[in-house]
Amino acid sequence: MLAADLFSFVTRVRERAPLVHCLTNLVVTNFTANVLLAIGAAPAMVVAREEAAQFAPLAHALLINLGTLDVPQMRAMRAAVDAANRAGTPWVLDPVAVGPLAFRTEFALELLDAKPAVIRGNASEIISLSGGEASGRGVDSTAATDAALDAAQILALNTQAVVAVTGATDYITDGRRVIALSNGSPLMTRVTGVGCALSAAVAAFVGAAQSRDEHWAATIAAIAYSTVAGELAAREAALPGSFAVAYLDRLASVDSQAFDATLVLREVAVS
Amino acid sequence: MLAADLFSFVTRVRERAPLVHCLTNLVVTNFTANVLLAIGAAPAMVVAREEAAQFAPLAHALLINLGTLDVPQMRAMRAAVDAANRAGTPWVLDPVAVGPLAFRTEFALELLDAKPAVIRGNASEIISLSGGEASGRGVDSTAATDAALDAAQILALNTQAVVAVTGATDYITDGRRVIALSNGSPLMTRVTGVGCALSAAVAAFVGAAQSRDEHWAATIAAIAYSTVAGELAAREAALPGSFAVAYLDRLASVDSQAFDATLVLREVAVS
Amino acid sequence: MLAADLFSFVTRVRERAPLVHCLTNLVVTNFTANVLLAIGAAPAMVVAREEAAQFAPLAHALLINLGTLDVPQMRAMRAAVDAANRAGTPWVLDPVAVGPLAFRTEFALELLDAKPAVIRGNASEIISLSGGEASGRGVDSTAATDAALDAAQILALNTQAVVAVTGATDYITDGRRVIALSNGSPLMTRVTGVGCALSAAVAAFVGAAQSRDEHWAATIAAIAYSTVAGELAAREAALPGSFAVAYLDRLASVDSQAFDATLVLREVAVS
Repeated sequence: MLAADLFSFVTRVRERAPLVHCLTNLVVTNFTANVLLAIGAAPAMVVAREEAAQFAPLAHALLINLGTLDVPQMRAMRAAVDAANRAGTPWVLDPVAVGPLAFRTEFALELLDAKPAVIRGNASEIISLSGGEASGRGVDSTAATDAALDAAQILALNTQAVVAVTGATDYITDGRRVIALSNGSPLMTRVTGVGCALSAAVAAFVGAAQSRDEHWAATIAAIAYSTVAGELAAREAALPGSFAVAYLDRLASVDSQAFDATLVLREVAVS
Repeated sequence: MLAADLFSFVTRVRERAPLVHCLTNLVVTNFTANVLLAIGAAPAMVVAREEAAQFAPLAHALLINLGTLDVPQMRAMRAAVDAANRAGTPWVLDPVAVGPLAFRTEFALELLDAKPAVIRGNASEIISLSGGEASGRGVDSTAATDAALDAAQILALNTQAVVAVTGATDYITDGRRVIALSNGSPLMTRVTGVGCALSAAVAAFVGAAQSRDEHWAATIAAIAYSTVAGELAAREAALPGSFAVAYLDRLASVDSQAFDATLVLREVAVS
Repeated sequence: MLAADLFSFVTRVRERAPLVHCLTNLVVTNFTANVLLAIGAAPAMVVAREEAAQFAPLAHALLINLGTLDVPQMRAMRAAVDAANRAGTPWVLDPVAVGPLAFRTEFALELLDAKPAVIRGNASEIISLSGGEASGRGVDSTAATDAALDAAQILALNTQAVVAVTGATDYITDGRRVIALSNGSPLMTRVTGVGCALSAAVAAFVGAAQSRDEHWAATIAAIAYSTVAGELAAREAALPGSFAVAYLDRLASVDSQAFDATLVLREVAVS
């Protein structure tokens, strides 16, 4: 897994501007759209059940984020996922706060059967999704990502999705292989929506992939690029308001040289 | 059409702080409110059907933006438009992504009968609204604004609204006259909600107009002022995160001298 | 009331990261979450009726903001308030635009019976809630805060809540005592959601309090800290876009020395 191969996905997103259909939570719609625009993708927040099914096949990828799930949104998500699957459009699941809350947890489990291409969550969320008992109290994970590595592999094998557990170290696995990324900054947890927008970036990269075989590398590339941008942004801005601005600026401008020089990636031997 | 005449609308907005009732999409509510505050207007996002009708007559203008239309919002919009029309409050239509999506397109056509004072959209949206076949894939326009000029004139004549098609060049027409504006920056397309907030600025300027006769000049002034602010912001910030900050700063501070020195306006001979 | 005592609440929020359950308006969700993260609290926007009741007892405080109230949100708010009261979780009421709009005003009056720990509003809102005739036109207050001081005291006595009226001068009262704070900046009214996020900060501080007896000092501390941060931010940024960034940076970094040196607090003799 070479940095140059990963950066080729960044270039592809910038050139193709994949259209990412986002059904996401109320808190992060704006930031998610700005992150997608910064990396060169085209966000589209089409939310009504009446339109979601018609729109999903027009998009290159679909993002389903459960952060502020309610019944009308659940219906729109079902319609969008069905339409995406029929059209062969890959979709990404962000199971925000799954575990302690029964309503969204049941829905997340239902969605696993609808074959997401990628699942990205924090440690608590991934442990919960794979059937374990996590200690999360909602949106913030209290578990370290290492603790979720086994759960992530099991979830990947069971769903055939690429699974990403993000935190101080990010792990990406397809069940057989595991990559660890160690970029980023603690400031990424001090701005709301950075994690949610990471899932949107994954959707954009997967939307620019040429086949299902590339979803693995596309997911690694999206998370590597975003966390490298966060790490570089933290070098110029030490507080959360200015960090959020610098992060968008870096997402729009990191080049392959800076990416290569910053990336910390290792392959993890699978037990 | 002199720059000084246009800038008098900027001054009026700053002095009168028109109250703009916004029924807009979930992605841009925050940015729209901040743009309105920056130009000196007062935003009010009253969204429930139960309140929209009561509030519309209290406002100086109403904005209807279809970006994340769903059935409850459609009902609130109908109530607000009816109340605005009964009270003589001007209203602005932003037909986001009209064309490819049947649900919102039907509703947009219904709204045309309710006499908007101004319609602002990108080329694809304006072509679709006037009955043509556009090539849009949703929120981003794939057509250049020139291609929509005929459609804009037809739409203006049919609806008696002022119609603005915005893009690299902005055209404003009432069906008989056409003004072209050539300010702005490509960065305005890299921040979500800049176009939607442009419609909100038009509503604020129209809300500060003294009569229907002034809607034409007020619309030109709103778009001219916003794009001049965007152009000046792009001179100090080359990346989208910092550009968004600079844009709000410029919207709050461009004076008549900077406006005059930057404005590029021409009258277009009407065929 | 010493600055050092007030700052001890700031330290406590930073150390305990209270989880604040927010049912707030569509315009300010993102900014509210970022303000909570900046001060060291943990925001959680769990909005569905199906989840609000389950989540409220897990949180350290609950925020109810009526800015974009509709029927589904009203139901979720009732469920959340009931669950919070049963669990002994304190909750804060922000009665946005109460007065001119009948739907939300009736609901706000209903909520008063459910014993909020704190009510924070502008002068018009507090006057309306206490039964008077205010001159507000919605979200912006047209009355000076002094005019609302009597109303605030009556409201506090009637509800046993701490009541805060914020504006150029902020008054906090429990009906028997009154504190006046004179920090802040007019720029705080040029960024949408600063007032709403102030209520969220109050919720975070109250959520870090050890008992009901501390709600009084916690409320003063939250407003004092936020307005001091705003005043310091305005010294480095004179325009609204950059002010919003600087405000988040200051909220994340003001130390006890800067707080002491800037705070302007006086006790008001109660009539």
